[in-house]
Amino acid sequence: MMEGISSEAASLAGTLRLGKLIYLYDDNNISIEGDTDITFTEDVSDRFRGYGWHVIGPIDGMDITEVDSAIRVARAEKDRPSLIICRTVIGYGSPNRAGTGLAHGEPLGEDEVKLSKEQLGWPYEEPFTVPPEALNHFRQARERGSRQQQEWQARMEAYRSAYPDIARQLELDLSGELPDSWDSDLDSMFLSEDKPMATREASGRIMNIISPRLHALVGGSADLAPSTKTILKQKGHFGIENYRGHNLHFGVREHAMGGIANGMAVHGGIIPYAATFLIFYDYMRPPVRLAAMMQQRVIYIFTHDSVGLGEDGPTHQPIEHLAGLRAVPNLTVIRPADATETIEAWKIALENRQGPTALILTRQKLPLLDRKILAPAGGVQRGGYILWQSAESPAIILIGTGSEVHIALEAGRLLEQKGIVASVVSLPCWGLFDAQPEEYRKSVLPPDIKARVSIEAAATMGWKKYVGDEGIAIGIDRFGASAPYRVIYDNFGLTAQRMADEAERLLKGR
Amino acid sequence: MMEGISSEAASLAGTLRLGKLIYLYDDNNISIEGDTDITFTEDVSDRFRGYGWHVIGPIDGMDITEVDSAIRVARAEKDRPSLIICRTVIGYGSPNRAGTGLAHGEPLGEDEVKLSKEQLGWPYEEPFTVPPEALNHFRQARERGSRQQQEWQARMEAYRSAYPDIARQLELDLSGELPDSWDSDLDSMFLSEDKPMATREASGRIMNIISPRLHALVGGSADLAPSTKTILKQKGHFGIENYRGHNLHFGVREHAMGGIANGMAVHGGIIPYAATFLIFYDYMRPPVRLAAMMQQRVIYIFTHDSVGLGEDGPTHQPIEHLAGLRAVPNLTVIRPADATETIEAWKIALENRQGPTALILTRQKLPLLDRKILAPAGGVQRGGYILWQSAESPAIILIGTGSEVHIALEAGRLLEQKGIVASVVSLPCWGLFDAQPEEYRKSVLPPDIKARVSIEAAATMGWKKYVGDEGIAIGIDRFGASAPYRVIYDNFGLTAQRMADEAERLLKGR
Repeated sequence: MMEGISSEAASLAGTLRLGKLIYLYDDNNISIEGDTDITFTEDVSDRFRGYGWHVIGPIDGMDITEVDSAIRVARAEKDRPSLIICRTVIGYGSPNRAGTGLAHGEPLGEDEVKLSKEQLGWPYEEPFTVPPEALNHFRQARERGSRQQQEWQARMEAYRSAYPDIARQLELDLSGELPDSWDSDLDSMFLSEDKPMATREASGRIMNIISPRLHALVGGSADLAPSTKTILKQKGHFGIENYRGHNLHFGVREHAMGGIANGMAVHGGIIPYAATFLIFYDYMRPPVRLAAMMQQRVIYIFTHDSVGLGEDGPTHQPIEHLAGLRAVPNLTVIRPADATETIEAWKIALENRQGPTALILTRQKLPLLDRKILAPAGGVQRGGYILWQSAESPAIILIGTGSEVHIALEAGRLLEQKGIVASVVSLPCWGLFDAQPEEYRKSVLPPDIKARVSIEAAATMGWKKYVGDEGIAIGIDRFGASAPYRVIYDNFGLTAQRMADEAERLLKGR
Repeated sequence: MMEGISSEAASLAGTLRLGKLIYLYDDNNISIEGDTDITFTEDVSDRFRGYGWHVIGPIDGMDITEVDSAIRVARAEKDRPSLIICRTVIGYGSPNRAGTGLAHGEPLGEDEVKLSKEQLGWPYEEPFTVPPEALNHFRQARERGSRQQQEWQARMEAYRSAYPDIARQLELDLSGELPDSWDSDLDSMFLSEDKPMATREASGRIMNIISPRLHALVGGSADLAPSTKTILKQKGHFGIENYRGHNLHFGVREHAMGGIANGMAVHGGIIPYAATFLIFYDYMRPPVRLAAMMQQRVIYIFTHDSVGLGEDGPTHQPIEHLAGLRAVPNLTVIRPADATETIEAWKIALENRQGPTALILTRQKLPLLDRKILAPAGGVQRGGYILWQSAESPAIILIGTGSEVHIALEAGRLLEQKGIVASVVSLPCWGLFDAQPEEYRKSVLPPDIKARVSIEAAATMGWKKYVGDEGIAIGIDRFGASAPYRVIYDNFGLTAQRMADEAERLLKGR
């Protein structure tokens, strides 16, 4: 009740009139530092009524009959979520610890366990004893559950006969599989584009191609849908007048958004996405971590991914966030270099059923990489690939991600003019690249080529792994600035000229 | 009003009856995705009354007289914080944009600016015109301010005469300086200790030595004071019965705790500390980032800093958090190896007036490094130092931080038994080490010694910078596990034997 996410979620549940939602509030008046009076004197009833909730209680939370009947009352309320305030005693039954903070933070200890068993009338000395009555109760529950499942399956059969298409859709959604040819024509989406395009824009277009074919795709933004380009235009908006909408509005509540996306993924039948600016990842780190730990397919769309967002300035410009994301185990982080790499990033995100994927997208427009003269974007599937090489036997490797790849490419061309052969590598996903066989990794980053320069508009942490002892990582290890993005790029040294100069310097120094 | 931190802070302000606090709620009914009805239908009056606030309004927030008199009413209320609900119109005066989301997200444009000026009766065409009436108003305000400052200074003089000691204390606190000899006897604190001690325990003892001498030290924990060992025993608890207490109770509200600590630092006169488990840093990343950006002296005490916390398991075991902290610009991150390094860490934190410092401390006990045979702990001041070397001309460098330093030391001794000379480096603070002159860095990590092994119970991201192309970073690039900490260390390969084996392998491979 104290953590901010509880307010975010409850306020949204009230707005959406989620009548099926029931909270049991275990109100035991105790926290680790002592009585909650020192930190929490609010009237929870008033607060939740303010959120538009149905409030029941306080009831005696130690009385099963009272709790059971409160749940019945809550279930009968269809239009509002229900809060049942249960007055409880922490460490109930322990003669010396009940109702104290110690019951939260410490084990009771052997003596107090014994005294508690006596007070509770629990005759079994052996720990983890399951009395026959309890065993019997659970066996009955299992039988009841089995009957209910059979009934549900019979209803499902009837439904399938009546509505074969919708039933097929439901089963496909619940299976978590992607429909056949869901991505059949994605590759050709941007073939006729020649104008620069932000990767957030490309992502929005891709989503709107996929969405009509992929019914399970449901998500939204923390009040940044227009800016993150995440509205599914052929789907309705989710709200009290339309629970069938696929476009959710989370409000300015990133933390709850992350938690809700996890809930949708764990529920199944849905492939949730959650969108905001990359800087606001800081507000939703805990649920992103849990998605990774729970191996859930949640897709994060983080736009405005660097100082390239321009005038909003340092409070809004991510610096350390890419490093932070890449350090999370089991989270796939992809920063595509243009619209064509963004297609591949979406394929990876949707096909990844072992964990969440974060798409890192630009606000600013980026030139489309010309695949007629460059390697195909399919290389994104391997995390990194040689995008272009001016001739055989390069003397230097230039590496970039996302919005800096075209700068690396330009640097490669500057070097070419000087007769220096460079290999330009696009490295949109460290995790996927690191998971490739050694042979492949060595083909992209040959160990004998020690002269390497990387460029990324973010903290340089971690780049030594790719540029090596002798290489140079161009990045930003300070906070950003408020200016048009081209000015920032120049002032922070994120330029092709600097990259080429560093490369030359490296080659001369050898 | 939607973001969780607003609830955390408001609930605590109500509990603490902060009568001087006044919120002006700019209630314009608009968010970026449209009308707030889609996400925010709560009754804010009820919610804030639930928090124990004095609620005024709704008033017409576009009417200066109404706002002014509401503020007067709010100031007259001494026992509760006040919320003034101001109904406002976003883009007020713009005939075509007022009251719409566009007024938030986009510039008005030249034509609409012109129309708005007409509607508002603003006769000046030139942007940024300051009319004479406004100029005059502000000049009068400046004179009034100057008079009030003189009055305050006269009162301060009288106060100094009446209470010279307290006045001196106040001025010292406001200067932000540390008192003379505040750290005079810290170095000898643990000389007679021979039992293993957790660095959280050492930190708690240090704080309690410092606290009586350093009046400005004020802080607390997000309901984990007993576990983080952060109670100042000679100071009272802050609460409605004692606003002079130095021990704050933030409740389970990490995000608000970080924000409040920033406010205290910016206010001045206070050196705030904020304590929680390292895993919960994820809940307070935004305020930590702001402290770094604002260059404020806030001290974070993050305990339970790795899988070493044991049984609480992966949800509570930090993995990526050290890398994340280190990537934040201007944040000093120190992970001391034992009680003696913890003394140095506290000195650095208190003397650092250019930004926040995070102390990364263990739950588990660690052996005290024997300074009679090892280098002095003062090396922490340089971020990293050679702790021990079995002989001249080492063949290998072993590096550790925090709870893994004693493992590196043990590995060094295993190698010594095999006749291999190792240098053992303690590297508690990357940032300070990187800021040392090249000569010093090369003396600790001589470039010609390529055989290097590091150990840290965290993600390995960033370690290549120190172990180099040929070196090996032992760490944890997956989520943790629930087990006693020695079992986890064994199972995750965080052992002296593995470290020694890797070192030998490196030497043989050359």
